[in-house]
Amino acid sequence: MNNIIKSLSDLGIVLPEPTKPVANYSPYVIFKNTIYVSGQIPFKDGTIAYQGKVGKDININEAVDASEICLLNTLALLNLATNNNLNRITSCIKINVFINSTDDFFEQPIVADGASNLIKKIFKDKGEHARSAVSCNSLPKNASVEIDSVFQLGD
Amino acid sequence: MNNIIKSLSDLGIVLPEPTKPVANYSPYVIFKNTIYVSGQIPFKDGTIAYQGKVGKDININEAVDASEICLLNTLALLNLATNNNLNRITSCIKINVFINSTDDFFEQPIVADGASNLIKKIFKDKGEHARSAVSCNSLPKNASVEIDSVFQLGD
Amino acid sequence: MNNIIKSLSDLGIVLPEPTKPVANYSPYVIFKNTIYVSGQIPFKDGTIAYQGKVGKDININEAVDASEICLLNTLALLNLATNNNLNRITSCIKINVFINSTDDFFEQPIVADGASNLIKKIFKDKGEHARSAVSCNSLPKNASVEIDSVFQLGD
Repeated sequence: MNNIIKSLSDLGIVLPEPTKPVANYSPYVIFKNTIYVSGQIPFKDGTIAYQGKVGKDININEAVDASEICLLNTLALLNLATNNNLNRITSCIKINVFINSTDDFFEQPIVADGASNLIKKIFKDKGEHARSAVSCNSLPKNASVEIDSVFQLGD
Repeated sequence: MNNIIKSLSDLGIVLPEPTKPVANYSPYVIFKNTIYVSGQIPFKDGTIAYQGKVGKDININEAVDASEICLLNTLALLNLATNNNLNRITSCIKINVFINSTDDFFEQPIVADGASNLIKKIFKDKGEHARSAVSCNSLPKNASVEIDSVFQLGD
Repeated sequence: MNNIIKSLSDLGIVLPEPTKPVANYSPYVIFKNTIYVSGQIPFKDGTIAYQGKVGKDININEAVDASEICLLNTLALLNLATNNNLNRITSCIKINVFINSTDDFFEQPIVADGASNLIKKIFKDKGEHARSAVSCNSLPKNASVEIDSVFQLGD
């Protein structure tokens, strides 16, 4: 059995408060055993941690950090969805990583690994996930990264 | 039970004719109880209602309108998929909103709410949906908005 | 019954070696009867066949070719996922086509048809798929096209 709660504790990760949607949609939807999590941006302590374009305003290390924050916000929502029992999440299926970058930035995979590495550390062998990573010329609230995702929920 | 047909009538919404795909794909695919709807652009009366970049050629009110039209085209396809029985659609799972915008446009959530607000009005408590909203530097046929989506189909 | 292996043979298509992910994610994930394939770029013979922006560095015929290569790489992964028995793939559900283009390129559907036409030829009546096609201002490794996808797997 997965022990995601223990993984978080071992890694010293304290989940942030779940963020509220910035408009008229839901933070997540559960359909059968699948949780669809809405696009998360790097909200942290009430502001957006990294705003602007990767490759100009934001360097690659900051972008990796932004990607991690998106994933932490995703986990906070999964925690809410499972009534504080993240162990009910049985696997990560897919993440879609959108990176607000300059036209000549080609290291989207490194940025996306901010989230992917964290998934692997936390979910261990249940963290094998599919992924896409593409650039965008702009994101909501001038965020540098947005990640939406699909997770599997146990019965 | 959902009464989407009544909601549409109450709101005075007359669905457009379902649009044909602009290339060699299907407007929607049903797999088990899930309907995947292809990306819809704001086709209206045979032309694209809003072409160009939001933040330059298209203002935010027009972009919201474009987003609504994308959703109406989606509903027209769901109506086709259910043989004119939209009440068989049991919920909206997810919409992905792509906005053809300038680099300095950050109000993607307002544009996406054009579609989301309509979903909430029509599906009521079954309209809770997950969402992503990102910008693109160009869209097919110079459309200002494209929306693809996933809906749940009852047995 | 589908005979995808025969279709490939009839069309003279030899699948490439499955590509390895360019970062810390999985090439595909199987959840119940659905296979989620990670975003594929036009890797061919160890390099990326078409790099740069469609509409400037890459013309439309080259972009169509890039789109086909993304699909062939997808099929190579499906072949791996099914232990060399592609006939177990019962249908294509959805492809998402991301095109690294200039701001004034509007023929995303033609580019995406590179992949869609190939799906139709290979899967025949099981090749009816939903699709979205949008532009991006940049893609990993300066690829001209990226395609992620969802396929149905038989029992």
